[in-house]
Amino acid sequence: MLALLDVVPIGTGSASLSGLLAQVVTLIDQSGLDYRVGPMGTTVEGEWDQIMALAKRCRDATLHTADRVMMTIQIDDRKDQPGAGRITAKVQSLEAKVGKPLKQ
Amino acid sequence: MLALLDVVPIGTGSASLSGLLAQVVTLIDQSGLDYRVGPMGTTVEGEWDQIMALAKRCRDATLHTADRVMMTIQIDDRKDQPGAGRITAKVQSLEAKVGKPLKQ
Amino acid sequence: MLALLDVVPIGTGSASLSGLLAQVVTLIDQSGLDYRVGPMGTTVEGEWDQIMALAKRCRDATLHTADRVMMTIQIDDRKDQPGAGRITAKVQSLEAKVGKPLKQ
Amino acid sequence: MLALLDVVPIGTGSASLSGLLAQVVTLIDQSGLDYRVGPMGTTVEGEWDQIMALAKRCRDATLHTADRVMMTIQIDDRKDQPGAGRITAKVQSLEAKVGKPLKQ
Repeated sequence: MLALLDVVPIGTGSASLSGLLAQVVTLIDQSGLDYRVGPMGTTVEGEWDQIMALAKRCRDATLHTADRVMMTIQIDDRKDQPGAGRITAKVQSLEAKVGKPLKQ
Repeated sequence: MLALLDVVPIGTGSASLSGLLAQVVTLIDQSGLDYRVGPMGTTVEGEWDQIMALAKRCRDATLHTADRVMMTIQIDDRKDQPGAGRITAKVQSLEAKVGKPLKQ
Repeated sequence: MLALLDVVPIGTGSASLSGLLAQVVTLIDQSGLDYRVGPMGTTVEGEWDQIMALAKRCRDATLHTADRVMMTIQIDDRKDQPGAGRITAKVQSLEAKVGKPLKQ
Repeated sequence: MLALLDVVPIGTGSASLSGLLAQVVTLIDQSGLDYRVGPMGTTVEGEWDQIMALAKRCRDATLHTADRVMMTIQIDDRKDQPGAGRITAKVQSLEAKVGKPLKQ
């Protein structure tokens, strides 16, 4: 399945969050799961238990530094397409139907 | 922690989703966790592992009937307010600051 | 249509957001649109332009005080049910299918 | 500001949504706004009114074909960084703090 993880630390006193989010992205990068970082969160591909264990580590790391965390996990799961590779196939399928390359 | 669960079955061929969503709400109601049903999802209060095990049961039940599911899990977790009861305290705190009852 | 508005001010230095969120809920309450406050955001019912004008006022009020705002607008729009009243009808329809009252 | 647009047509009877979503991405591509397509939605950069007018066109196009649409608009707005280019600067800032290139 695919899951978009968006982590927002609260109460840090700064409008910039990239220091704390670098910790989160490092955990995702080290997880071994395939991922894509975007401007509004990171999409991860894997099984439910793998992704949720990773999400919990991201929550724990954030609450180590911040008093509060908001986190959105947006899931897209298809039993008719159980294999890996949807993280790239979705955008390729869009491009094929639009008939031109899209900005990624 | 609090988590808003929003489950969207895909590919059922009907604009009405309430039959499938009744299964999801029944699972939430039977979980023993405190919850509030709203027009755009159900908020659940509990520990990470309790809520994520429930979310997985909701995913599994939906994929039993539909080929695809979109699910959003919106988390609000505070280490400075670890106790239970935030599911009602948040709205009460808002009402106290607004100075009048709000429509719930 | 229905829209769940969830506003998160960033960089205020406090884990508690209820002071700023009271401003947001006051704007919603004064809009004249039907709404329901929940533990994870407020659902509003109205036409696209009405709801988006309200959302913009909530954004502006938050940025008056905070340097940054994260805002999630979750929309559910049906052309086969254009009338008003979905804000209560959705939960009633769920309750009818579950066969018992649900916690709201 | 940045906004992640995620459009989910409901009731089309198919688990595949890419045909309808190609329409949405074409509207975004033709808008003239800077954007990045990802596996879980498209992030757009622009002013509030530009982005919301585009989001409305995406809603209208989807409801032309489907009876119901779920749409999530996730906004990140900073008054301390009003200029353009945040759509690439956010990920670059993360990479600088992580100290290595990230998969995009």
